[in-house]
Amino acid sequence: MKITMRLGERSYDIIIKEGGLGRIGQLANLSRRVLVVSDSGVPEEYIRTVLAQCSAGVPVILQQGEGAKSLESFGTLLNVMYEHGFTRADTVLAVGGGVVGDVAGFAASAYMRGIRFINCPTTTLAQIDASVGGKTAVNIGGAKNVAGAFYQPSLVVADTDALKTLPPRHFVNGLAEAVKAGLLFDETLFTMFEEQDVHDCITDIIVRSIAAKQSVVERDEREKGLRATLNFGHTIGHAIESCEGLGGLYHGECVALGMLPMIEEPSVRRRVRSVYKKLGLPVHIRYDGDKIMEFIRHDKKQRADGTFTVVRLAQIGKSRLDKVTAEQLRGIIREGIR
Amino acid sequence: MKITMRLGERSYDIIIKEGGLGRIGQLANLSRRVLVVSDSGVPEEYIRTVLAQCSAGVPVILQQGEGAKSLESFGTLLNVMYEHGFTRADTVLAVGGGVVGDVAGFAASAYMRGIRFINCPTTTLAQIDASVGGKTAVNIGGAKNVAGAFYQPSLVVADTDALKTLPPRHFVNGLAEAVKAGLLFDETLFTMFEEQDVHDCITDIIVRSIAAKQSVVERDEREKGLRATLNFGHTIGHAIESCEGLGGLYHGECVALGMLPMIEEPSVRRRVRSVYKKLGLPVHIRYDGDKIMEFIRHDKKQRADGTFTVVRLAQIGKSRLDKVTAEQLRGIIREGIR
Repeated sequence: MKITMRLGERSYDIIIKEGGLGRIGQLANLSRRVLVVSDSGVPEEYIRTVLAQCSAGVPVILQQGEGAKSLESFGTLLNVMYEHGFTRADTVLAVGGGVVGDVAGFAASAYMRGIRFINCPTTTLAQIDASVGGKTAVNIGGAKNVAGAFYQPSLVVADTDALKTLPPRHFVNGLAEAVKAGLLFDETLFTMFEEQDVHDCITDIIVRSIAAKQSVVERDEREKGLRATLNFGHTIGHAIESCEGLGGLYHGECVALGMLPMIEEPSVRRRVRSVYKKLGLPVHIRYDGDKIMEFIRHDKKQRADGTFTVVRLAQIGKSRLDKVTAEQLRGIIREGIR
Repeated sequence: MKITMRLGERSYDIIIKEGGLGRIGQLANLSRRVLVVSDSGVPEEYIRTVLAQCSAGVPVILQQGEGAKSLESFGTLLNVMYEHGFTRADTVLAVGGGVVGDVAGFAASAYMRGIRFINCPTTTLAQIDASVGGKTAVNIGGAKNVAGAFYQPSLVVADTDALKTLPPRHFVNGLAEAVKAGLLFDETLFTMFEEQDVHDCITDIIVRSIAAKQSVVERDEREKGLRATLNFGHTIGHAIESCEGLGGLYHGECVALGMLPMIEEPSVRRRVRSVYKKLGLPVHIRYDGDKIMEFIRHDKKQRADGTFTVVRLAQIGKSRLDKVTAEQLRGIIREGIR
């Protein structure tokens, strides 16, 4: 399955394919220096498979986890490329989850002011979400995605075989972004979660989620308007994720929690909770509302006039950007999830 | 004097004006958080003048010199912005030479994936060259501009009063880029150096140099072709600059030296040497050709097939991109400057 992102001279293909990792050499020219970026949680076999197809591959294995999404990792990648004599004609290739893709993509955007970037997401979350849209970033001061670049890859290869070796909680974590895509744009996708076993239709879920995001990103690549709806669940979700001591929730789990208070129609909220329960996503959490607000203030959603833009869902397929005051947002946080 | 860079939605104005620093508040909205980036070589008075016009200015003073053009400085700026709660609505403002503008611009490009950037170049070099074109960068491993971004400012204010306090060698250093602009595109500009006192016509020189670069950048913002001619003198120039122990030459001085072997017509080369002598730019240097080659290999001008693209000048106004082998380049380096 191939989806083409149509972004003018920054267009690229997303290949969704079992065994895709073993075929990258046929899909892209790897007869050049290739920085193969991965992390310690990615099976070594995947990295070996990719390196075997590169004529001059240079592997860099980051520490697994959000901590690797740092300026330090960014600097490491740039320095390794420089030491190995990388030029503008060379390539960065990421094999792993969202953290790997985000750091590697940011480094690719900056090295020589931009070299080729190939992304091979190996987690559900990265295949569904991080692989589409060209947002790269690192965290700063414990807050997510404070620094980065809009930078499109030249190719994305999502090997669905890689999902089979994921721990169950990791597998489910990524589905939260697919539930989001369904709620925002594709009721059929949402009902698949209600009616089918996700393992039976995972390729369909990934393709439909990417297609939904594709049409948004094509119309608003740099998030001037429409694309902001993709932040559904992320205002509170990022804050939950950033707050330490909240039980070490994953990104998708936080987004799942962050979407609930933004759903206005109680019947839809009930259906979403049922889907979460079926999948094994969390449906509630105890937290300190003040701490959440403090993080949101630091997050990039606050405007110059002190208000916040949040995404609210009236019905499935009907979302809107809402400007709320700090007080209103505090109310949503307080009442939304109990 | 105002020059408008026409780059679609990234268009911006360059204001060349005596006393411009005192008027930034009238030219741009500074009623927001403003990161005022400068270095220890910039007169404090300039920084105070700018801060006085900001409602919430946050000054960061880097150490003077090329060493500040580092990933460390980049990280410092990002962290300071985060700690002060900067949002997408806020601004980075650079006051200083090329180093300050390059680091501050790169940080502005990355913070929240891009916030407003105002550049106030205070050196001849920065006003003539670094302020135009949107190239931002830091050095890595001692090599120039290895990491960065194409990122256009929203406003450039070149206060020509600032040039009056520059040490003479600094003042002259920047003129090398103006000589380059004249040689490439504007014979009238070049003859100004032969026939006039530069102090009498410095504003004209700056305006003509910016105008020459403007037309190139407007046609090729991301250096896919034409813009590469602006690298005239830079292949060897950067290498000379990167080689330590060469007597601590400035950037413009290195570019001046790097242009000479790329001028094919002996009579033009003689005229250029005369201008250098009149201005006080260097006309020759002793160096180790192998060391220069080694640096050029690391520089971004090497192609995948091992050749190098250099800019050669047949006559004033007639330049071309030339693909040369390492052996040919070695010959140019050996024979060019003696």
